[in-house]
Amino acid sequence: MLTHFDKVFRIDFLLDKQKPILIGVSGGPDSLCLLDLLHKCGYLVIIAHMNHKLRPEADAEARSVEGLAASLRVEFALEECNIRALAEKTGQSIEGTARQARYRFLFRQAEEIGAQAVAAGHNADDQVETVLMHLLQGTGLAGLMGMQPITLPNPWSEEIPLVRPLLSTWSDQILEYCRTNHLEPLFDRSNEDTKFLRNRLRHELIPQLEEYAPGVKSRLWQTADILAADRAVLDDAVALARHSCLLEQGDGYVSFDALSLSYQPLSVRRGLVKWAMSMLRSDIRDLSFEAVERATSLLESAPRAGQQDIALGVSAFLEEGVFYLADRGADLPSKQWPQMPSNAESLVIDLPGRIDLADGWQITAKVHRAGEIDWEQVLNNRDPYRAWVDVGEQATSLNVRGRSPGDRFSPFGMGGNSKKLSDLMIDLKIPQRARARWPLICRGDEILWLPGFRQAHGYGLNEESRRIVFLQLLRPS
Amino acid sequence: MLTHFDKVFRIDFLLDKQKPILIGVSGGPDSLCLLDLLHKCGYLVIIAHMNHKLRPEADAEARSVEGLAASLRVEFALEECNIRALAEKTGQSIEGTARQARYRFLFRQAEEIGAQAVAAGHNADDQVETVLMHLLQGTGLAGLMGMQPITLPNPWSEEIPLVRPLLSTWSDQILEYCRTNHLEPLFDRSNEDTKFLRNRLRHELIPQLEEYAPGVKSRLWQTADILAADRAVLDDAVALARHSCLLEQGDGYVSFDALSLSYQPLSVRRGLVKWAMSMLRSDIRDLSFEAVERATSLLESAPRAGQQDIALGVSAFLEEGVFYLADRGADLPSKQWPQMPSNAESLVIDLPGRIDLADGWQITAKVHRAGEIDWEQVLNNRDPYRAWVDVGEQATSLNVRGRSPGDRFSPFGMGGNSKKLSDLMIDLKIPQRARARWPLICRGDEILWLPGFRQAHGYGLNEESRRIVFLQLLRPS
Repeated sequence: MLTHFDKVFRIDFLLDKQKPILIGVSGGPDSLCLLDLLHKCGYLVIIAHMNHKLRPEADAEARSVEGLAASLRVEFALEECNIRALAEKTGQSIEGTARQARYRFLFRQAEEIGAQAVAAGHNADDQVETVLMHLLQGTGLAGLMGMQPITLPNPWSEEIPLVRPLLSTWSDQILEYCRTNHLEPLFDRSNEDTKFLRNRLRHELIPQLEEYAPGVKSRLWQTADILAADRAVLDDAVALARHSCLLEQGDGYVSFDALSLSYQPLSVRRGLVKWAMSMLRSDIRDLSFEAVERATSLLESAPRAGQQDIALGVSAFLEEGVFYLADRGADLPSKQWPQMPSNAESLVIDLPGRIDLADGWQITAKVHRAGEIDWEQVLNNRDPYRAWVDVGEQATSLNVRGRSPGDRFSPFGMGGNSKKLSDLMIDLKIPQRARARWPLICRGDEILWLPGFRQAHGYGLNEESRRIVFLQLLRPS
Repeated sequence: MLTHFDKVFRIDFLLDKQKPILIGVSGGPDSLCLLDLLHKCGYLVIIAHMNHKLRPEADAEARSVEGLAASLRVEFALEECNIRALAEKTGQSIEGTARQARYRFLFRQAEEIGAQAVAAGHNADDQVETVLMHLLQGTGLAGLMGMQPITLPNPWSEEIPLVRPLLSTWSDQILEYCRTNHLEPLFDRSNEDTKFLRNRLRHELIPQLEEYAPGVKSRLWQTADILAADRAVLDDAVALARHSCLLEQGDGYVSFDALSLSYQPLSVRRGLVKWAMSMLRSDIRDLSFEAVERATSLLESAPRAGQQDIALGVSAFLEEGVFYLADRGADLPSKQWPQMPSNAESLVIDLPGRIDLADGWQITAKVHRAGEIDWEQVLNNRDPYRAWVDVGEQATSLNVRGRSPGDRFSPFGMGGNSKKLSDLMIDLKIPQRARARWPLICRGDEILWLPGFRQAHGYGLNEESRRIVFLQLLRPS
């Protein structure tokens, strides 16, 4: 076993005998075995122990691990943490809180001493239990592949890997090693408590599965190994697709080109949604199947515009060929529409004149005499970015403003019947978040043009029109 | 449910109301429900039933399905097959034999009547059971993704899809549909028999898992759905890699460029091995994890040459940068080495002269006088494809032959010590299958040159050499 592991440590885990390794030692058989193997192979080990203060014997266990460190003449780091109090404060589970606190402590220590790695004692049985737990929880490939032998980056460090050299060694082999090497592991009685799902899997489900299908334990281990390799290919595919689909990663939002995204295989679309969610919510662990489906199905169902709550305060939008995942309050870019500048409630455009809207959009006004214009062009105009209006001989300017409560609009050609502007905007499928600051061209307070869509009744040209104002909405150049 | 399925049939399954659909009807709730839905939605259904002759009530069931077809005025096809006898003959399991015979029958019928699809009644519970069965058997992603809604090509047809429109409908919903539509399904009592693994999963394991983790059934269904999409991306990656790695698909062998293969991610290498195995053994269903590992690890461990039994009489070879998966008896290509032609035990090369070996290789012999040659070049020769020998003034030809038992060889520069040719070939890492027919250049029966490797003691040039033979091994052009 020693020669085997000497090779495993060097070749599979790339460990260096000249640099310290921090090992988390609970005192149980796994961590004792790993410590003994590393120590006997000549590695510079440092023992770290966290006293979770959860069980009456916790203090005695901490002293026992400290004694072991002293007898091996190995450095020892101890931390105490009242997990129960912490869990109550955060509302998280005891186990989750203990795990987080422990790894934070281990990596903080590792960083301080410049350790090459943090080593954990997870074994092959732990791996099988993890796979089954994740299967029951429904976590897809990311969960079914279980724990990885080397994890970098990990949630606690970008530089120090978490290594699990015993991940392919079964618990039986570890106990046997402890016996033959006269190690005296502590046994955590909470491992027997079947109120924990993991313990029920270990003591009830897995033995039963072995009865249904002998050898299932090692097959589950292999399955995790196979799936981890599969997952690496999928991760590459998602990373590659990101290059062609990602438009922008802004403050509180991520945007994709909707068309490019829709050409990706479903698995890659799902992967991109998960990636975007992890960018928006770094603490996310598992995103539900339904949440991912809501996002990907928005893309399929709504060719032009739509919105969907996803999870954790993130919404998906589909607007003008752009697919957003965004915080509900995020300041999304609006380059694709004309919007009032954020610092102006209203603007005045001279006749003739030009004004700047947000993000490079502009409106220009030119003034013509009736004899100068091409009436054919004016009467056949189908371009909603252009309007010819008659505002009389006197007007020297027009007002440009955003929407006000109670605004009404009488579309040209509807005989002067007006409707609520807010309803009209919905009918015209103007995206919700673009409505409030959509520029409205007004004579006094009356809207005469909704640029990009409609001209109002009462300002169209007729045979009496003498002074004609040509308005044009210009996209950012 | 009817309007829902009308849409599902049309949009998700692309079924056409004008073309017949063959539906396998056992008489159980799933197939009755599917039949009723298709029929009520106005599809042209044809009922097929296979009487497996396994249970006493089998004949009565066949008559009952026939009666149903008559009452619906729908075409009916019946086949009887003594599954038990067939299973005994082939040594396969009863269930596997029944399944194969049933699908062969269904697709044969479907082909005869020009059906657009064969429809099967598998439901969402069946899917979950399939996923768990495969998990216990250890089949990787291909098994964990369960059954597919549409399978084409499938093992029984390249053109007619197998469709499973009820795959996302739970058994409860189907039973409820049967009740409210006054359908009277038959119940197969063998579904209760817990000697079958599937039934134990249904009646024991799944209810227990639901207790551990409520909602697990629908999560397992979703997991299969997610993994199927993941699998599609991996299949694409494997197909793409095949373009860059596959050298040849010959009679009884598949060869890859070993270097290109080694650059592929592990999952893709595994996928290519599985693909090659499926080409060599079309009836293969599940290739074990270990078999795939033997093949991929050969590639990693042996940079130059190696051989490994894989499974089902297929071996993997690594030779001169080519990775083969081949039948043990396959006639592998040997273009990469000089080999005696397959129709000649021995050849004679005139001095001067030229002979053809197999696959375009040649050996040429030129004759020079001592004064004509560049002695510098000869004495410094490091090219094993060239040899300058002294065979005396009289020799008008040399013999070229394959290896004989007892052949010995005295390498030049070893003071005349000879060793067994077979040992020398091993030392020189000549691939095993290339050894017997490697051409040996002989004076009489004595080997004077092992082309590509060594010249023999006793035939080198010396200051007395007057007539010099220049031998050259030429690669195929």
